[in-house]
This record gives sequence, C-alpha cells and structure tokens, in this order.
Amino acid sequence: MIGEIIAIGDELTSGRILNTTSGYAARKLFDAGYTIHAMSTIGDHPELIGEALLRAIGRVDFIIVTGGLGSTDDDITNEAVSQALERPTLPNLTILARIREHLKRGPSPNNPLEKLAWLPDGADPFDPVSRIAGYQLVHQDTPIFFLPGVPEEMKDLMTRAVLPKLAAWQAGSALQTRQRIFKVFGLAESEINLRIKGLDLDGEIKIGYYPVYPDVHVSLLLRSTDSSQAAERFEAACLRLEEVLEDHVYGIDADELESVVGRLLSESNRTLCAAESCTGGLLAHRVTKVAGSSDYFLGGVVAYANELKSSLLGVSPETLTAHGAVSPETASLMATGVRSRCGADISISITGIAGPSGGSIDKPVGTVFIGISSSHITEIERLQFSGDRHRIQAMAAHTGLDLLRRFLLRLQPLT
Amino acid sequence: MIGEIIAIGDELTSGRILNTTSGYAARKLFDAGYTIHAMSTIGDHPELIGEALLRAIGRVDFIIVTGGLGSTDDDITNEAVSQALERPTLPNLTILARIREHLKRGPSPNNPLEKLAWLPDGADPFDPVSRIAGYQLVHQDTPIFFLPGVPEEMKDLMTRAVLPKLAAWQAGSALQTRQRIFKVFGLAESEINLRIKGLDLDGEIKIGYYPVYPDVHVSLLLRSTDSSQAAERFEAACLRLEEVLEDHVYGIDADELESVVGRLLSESNRTLCAAESCTGGLLAHRVTKVAGSSDYFLGGVVAYANELKSSLLGVSPETLTAHGAVSPETASLMATGVRSRCGADISISITGIAGPSGGSIDKPVGTVFIGISSSHITEIERLQFSGDRHRIQAMAAHTGLDLLRRFLLRLQPLT
Repeated sequence: MIGEIIAIGDELTSGRILNTTSGYAARKLFDAGYTIHAMSTIGDHPELIGEALLRAIGRVDFIIVTGGLGSTDDDITNEAVSQALERPTLPNLTILARIREHLKRGPSPNNPLEKLAWLPDGADPFDPVSRIAGYQLVHQDTPIFFLPGVPEEMKDLMTRAVLPKLAAWQAGSALQTRQRIFKVFGLAESEINLRIKGLDLDGEIKIGYYPVYPDVHVSLLLRSTDSSQAAERFEAACLRLEEVLEDHVYGIDADELESVVGRLLSESNRTLCAAESCTGGLLAHRVTKVAGSSDYFLGGVVAYANELKSSLLGVSPETLTAHGAVSPETASLMATGVRSRCGADISISITGIAGPSGGSIDKPVGTVFIGISSSHITEIERLQFSGDRHRIQAMAAHTGLDLLRRFLLRLQPLT
Repeated sequence: MIGEIIAIGDELTSGRILNTTSGYAARKLFDAGYTIHAMSTIGDHPELIGEALLRAIGRVDFIIVTGGLGSTDDDITNEAVSQALERPTLPNLTILARIREHLKRGPSPNNPLEKLAWLPDGADPFDPVSRIAGYQLVHQDTPIFFLPGVPEEMKDLMTRAVLPKLAAWQAGSALQTRQRIFKVFGLAESEINLRIKGLDLDGEIKIGYYPVYPDVHVSLLLRSTDSSQAAERFEAACLRLEEVLEDHVYGIDADELESVVGRLLSESNRTLCAAESCTGGLLAHRVTKVAGSSDYFLGGVVAYANELKSSLLGVSPETLTAHGAVSPETASLMATGVRSRCGADISISITGIAGPSGGSIDKPVGTVFIGISSSHITEIERLQFSGDRHRIQAMAAHTGLDLLRRFLLRLQPLT
C-alpha cells in the first residue's frame, strides 16, 4: 500500500519549527512495510490544503494529515477538509460533552474550545473522551488519518491508532510481513553493511539501515505468502545477522539501552547508583525513564562543582589538585565513593569536558572518563567524543549505559 | 514574493533521513521577508517530481528544489526537470572540463561523474568550477533554484547564491518584515487566543500560535513598506502582548526556560543545587545543557530510594514514615537538606509519583511536590500532572524550572 503525508502549519512553512512528525510517520510506515511516495508541508491556507488532499486521494491508498486540529483561529484543517471534500462540519456529541464537563458549565458556543468538537461529516475520532484530537475519515474508499501536530500526541496516535487501523484495512491480503529491528551501537553503518553483505542472505529478505543517532537500527524484513516455511527462514536469517554484528546488537524492536540495562540489573538482582559530572544527571534521567526502575536504581549524585566531588563523593582535594577533575583517578574515586554512600551493588561515574570551553592540549573538549565499580573491581575507560556540548553529553551518557550493559553481561549471576 | 520548496529523495520519504534542509530554507526565506506557501518532499520518481514542479510554476513567484543532483543512478532531478519543462539536457562545458581535469584524462562518456555536467537547457550553474552542484533556471518568468541535498552544501549555497539572486530579482519592492516569538508557559492556547483577541491589534499585525509542548510560542509579525512608522508600531504591539500574557511569558526568540533561569542566577550572583526523586536527574540535566552553567550550578542529589533521601539529604525516617516520600514535609526537608549539603544559595526539590504504579486515592499518579528554598524562606507547591510517565517527568522538571524563574524574579538583588 502506498501512502502520502501532509503536514499543515505556518510554523512549518516559516521554518520556525522543524517538521519532525512527517519523518517520524514515514519511518514508522516504512518499518511496517508501507511505501510513502510524497510528503507535503502546507501553510495555513484552506485552498492549498484542500488541493493537496484531493490530489492525494486520487493517487494513493491512504493519507496521513498532521496539524491544525486545535482550538485557535489558525487551526483550519477541519474547515479545509469540510470545504474540499464537501462534508459539512457537525458537532461530535461525546467531545462536546467532555469539553462542557471540563468547562463545568452548560452550552457556551462562544468558547473557542467548543471548536474542537466540530468535525467533517463522517469523521470517526480515535479517542473522543481524551483531550487529544484526531480522527479517521474514509473518502472515496481511501482512509485518511488526521493527527495533531504536537509531536508527542502525533507519535502516540501513530502507534496506538493509525498502524493498527491500517493493518486492519489491509487485512484482506494474504501477504504476511515479518520484521525485526536490531539496535546496534558502536559499529559504523558502512561496517555493518560490509558484514551483512558477506552473509549472502536469501533474496526475499530485505535489509534496511536507519542511523538513529548515535545508534544504527538494522531492519530485517521478509514478505511471504507461504507461512509454513517463512517463520523458519526468518528466524534463521535473524540468527545469522546477530552473529555477524556480535555484541554490538544491544536489543531488538522496542528495546532501549536503558531498558536493557534495567532488565540485566533486575535479572541479576543487583542495584545501581550513579555519580555524574559533565552529563549533569542525564544518565540517571535515562535510567529512571524506565517504568519500574525504582526496583534497581537507588539514585546518585550530580557533582558538578569540584567541592561537591569532595563533600558528597569523598574525592580527596589532593586527587583533584594532582590529577584534575577530569582524570581516571577522579572517575575511580567518584565511582567507589558513590557506591559506598548509596549502598548499591554497582556504580557508574562520568566526568569529562562537555565544552565549549575548558579543554586543553592533553584533555581537549570531548574528553570523558567513565568508571564502573562493583565490590570486586573498578574499571575506567577514557573516551574522546566530538561535536557540540549537547552531543558530547548525549554520547557520554549513551556510552556509559552501553559500558554498564557490557559489564553486566560479563558478571556471574548472584546466588 | 511567495515561494515553494521541493525536496527530492527516497531517503526522505522513507523517513531514513530527517529533512532538515527544507526547514532551513524556509526559515532563511521567512527571515528575509519571503513567504513559503508549501513544501513538498518527493521520492525518486520523475513523474511526481515533474508534476510538483509544473504545479508550483503556475502558482508561486519562485521555487527551491533540493536533492538528486549527484552522479549516482538514483539522482534523477535533472532528468525529471528536462522531461517536465521540455528542456533537453545539454553538457555544460566548464563543468565537463573540470571533471575531465579531475579524472586526468580525455573524454570518458561512460564515467558516471560526467553525468554531473549534463543540465537542462537554460541552466545557469552557481559555481561551475567547484565540485558543488546547483544552478538557477528561469522558466515562464519564474526563477527556480536547484540545490544539492547535502545539508552543508545546500545551506552554503542558500546564503551565498539563492538569497542574493532572489534579492536582485525582487529589487523593485521594499517590503520589510519584523517578527518576535514570545515563549509562554502555564496558559492554555485557547486562553492566550482569548486574551490576544481582546487587544484588537493593528490589522497588519499577524499573530500565530505554535504549541511546543509544554509551552505555547506566540509569534507577532509585521510586514510593512513604511519603515519609519513600522518599528514603533511593532514595539508598541509587543508591549501590549506582553502585558496581557503577564509573567507567563518567560522569554523571547531563542530563550529556553533553563537559559532564562541561568541568566537570572548569574545576574543576581546566586548559586543553585537540586534534589530530585521522580524526575531522576532531568532538571539537573536541563540546567547543565546551558554552556557556562558551571558558573552557577553546583550539582545535587538524585534520591530515588527512600534510604538515600535520609542518608544523602537528611530527611528523617520518621518524616518518611509519617508523611510519605511524596509529601510537602519530605519536599521541604529535601530542599533544605540539599541546600546545606551543597552550600548553594538556592535549592530546588522534586518528589512525586511518575507512575505507572505507585498512586493512591489521596496521591494519584501525577502528584508532584516541588520545593524551593533559600536562607530566608522555603516554599512548597503541590501539582497534579496527567499523561504517561515520560510526560509527568517532563512536566515536573519544566514546572520546577518555571517556579525557580518566578522565585528568582521576586528576589531582591544581593548587595
């Protein structure tokens, strides 16, 4: 099935906001086996929106439209759709009731929020009792999905509503798709490509590479009508792929580095704490994004000032003077210090120079030391990252999580 | 002058690469006073490219096309343009000579690099002696600018070639654009709309609303040819807008909440530290994203486990038992505890239930207490957020930064 994506909003055509939602949708659809032929971004002009919509209806199998569903005057998607498809806007009573309940009063046709309830005839809202807008409309046998422009809401509905509905729409077809995404960190795309080429996989198996900084996601896809053999061939190909990419594959599908680390900690019944300097809490934040992380993450210290490295973590002022705050010695004392103070089984420490200033010839901007410590051993790695402050912080936290993963994989289970 | 942007490439329509060049071009053009009505992204299909180009020629004053100018088989822009505009491709002799010089040999029509020299009839290359592709073509009195898809090359040519050429094209007109973005937190878009409607602004002033979760960005724009009056009218409108939105406006243009808080701390010569539970380090991470934050941010504690709230922050076990970890009492002791341990002027504490589990009737998921403490006063706010874990953490950190901003604005300067 071939689709088209239309994003609406002056904030996009003026370049004020970078359009990230269309790319996200294209990616999700591609991963699910659909093809996108074109994407448009259109300002808040009803005629242009209508024209783009009518053109798409004629030439693709489904359409995604994002943006312009809110309550303000420049939200004109519903009006444009109504005009272009000749479908009058009608009030959705469930949405209207929710808004009035929210406003805690009776009919208030002048309240701009009520605009949210007026949808083109035939619109089927995804979730009329929630405050997130969005609906499906089938016009000339073409399903059209209208989503909010707010990236989080759009992404949520894309996964939760659009993909299942599209799959249901397509259900008549006997073609089955099997797909697995391998999440890879620490191998360049060209190296991954070389290793997979050497595999000489079954011609029907399709491999895709998606750099998702700083990872590369490798997608393995098999489309087949012959279901008996397909499962075996698919699993065999996955196995061979994992072999050549070795332990650079940290997870599959929905895995994140922090959820994999969390699983390894839970499974081995160990607790973690962190001492961060240049990452300023980013690693701890990523660990605690995972629901249930309180089972294994105790907490830690953000020791940005040198005084706190001494007072909260026990790094001696002599060490700081002799070796500097960015040194293997400081990283080691930060790791052992935070572990003993938090009473955790394993600790991680990060100290480095995120820039833009603070670099020297010996330790340029991007120099980072990461320590990992257990009761048996304390290991320190020196790393050199490039890019701006934000990129160095992101790479340091990501690499820290990957080092933790590798450390945990080597551990014997606690008995 | 109104323009349209067309980006070409399967890597964009598959979502493999995020299209950053169209947004960049739109922003540069907008800043220079042009209006972009629509942007399209199209896969490597000559018919679709030709169709988009012909449609644009009919309705706008200029067109930017990016991508597909390289030497590989999937670079098909020149071929598509040649077909759609009925302009045969002809070899540009300067480019051909450069390529042959580069290859250090005579004619080599089979070398794929020679493809770079064949351009649609009428093409006027920006820089035929450099290896960067790109040209201008005027068709039916419409200037069309063809640029490479590689972001660095495209951005370079946009500034160096397209903007001067467009300005020369437009030389007759003297329209000037003034714009300011107001960053607003804590007011719903509908409420902002209502307040601004009440202002009854000058008809030439255009207001736009852009929800950038969890903020709303309000853009105020004035286009005018009368430059003497325009500056005054623009500043007067900005002032009236700030009045009605009150202190919900936390900054303008490139300001971020963390950079505004940083500026207020620097200006008042005060230091900050943080004690976080449910946000797990997110607030500290945001503060330390700002370059130079080490001047005012000392660090802090991520006290995820209750034991650490006691051992690292001095919250008494009795308080935790009597009131719970998520309580105003605990938030208060976390704030005062972290302040005294870090020796900072001001501290912030966050404790709450990010979910998905852990809620109760009295304290449902999303309940968060935020404390701010100085040597004079400790203030605690109770907040209730909705959404998933990720959203609750993001809202708690964002609201924490906003409460810090408001606290700092009320302070007397240190003498």
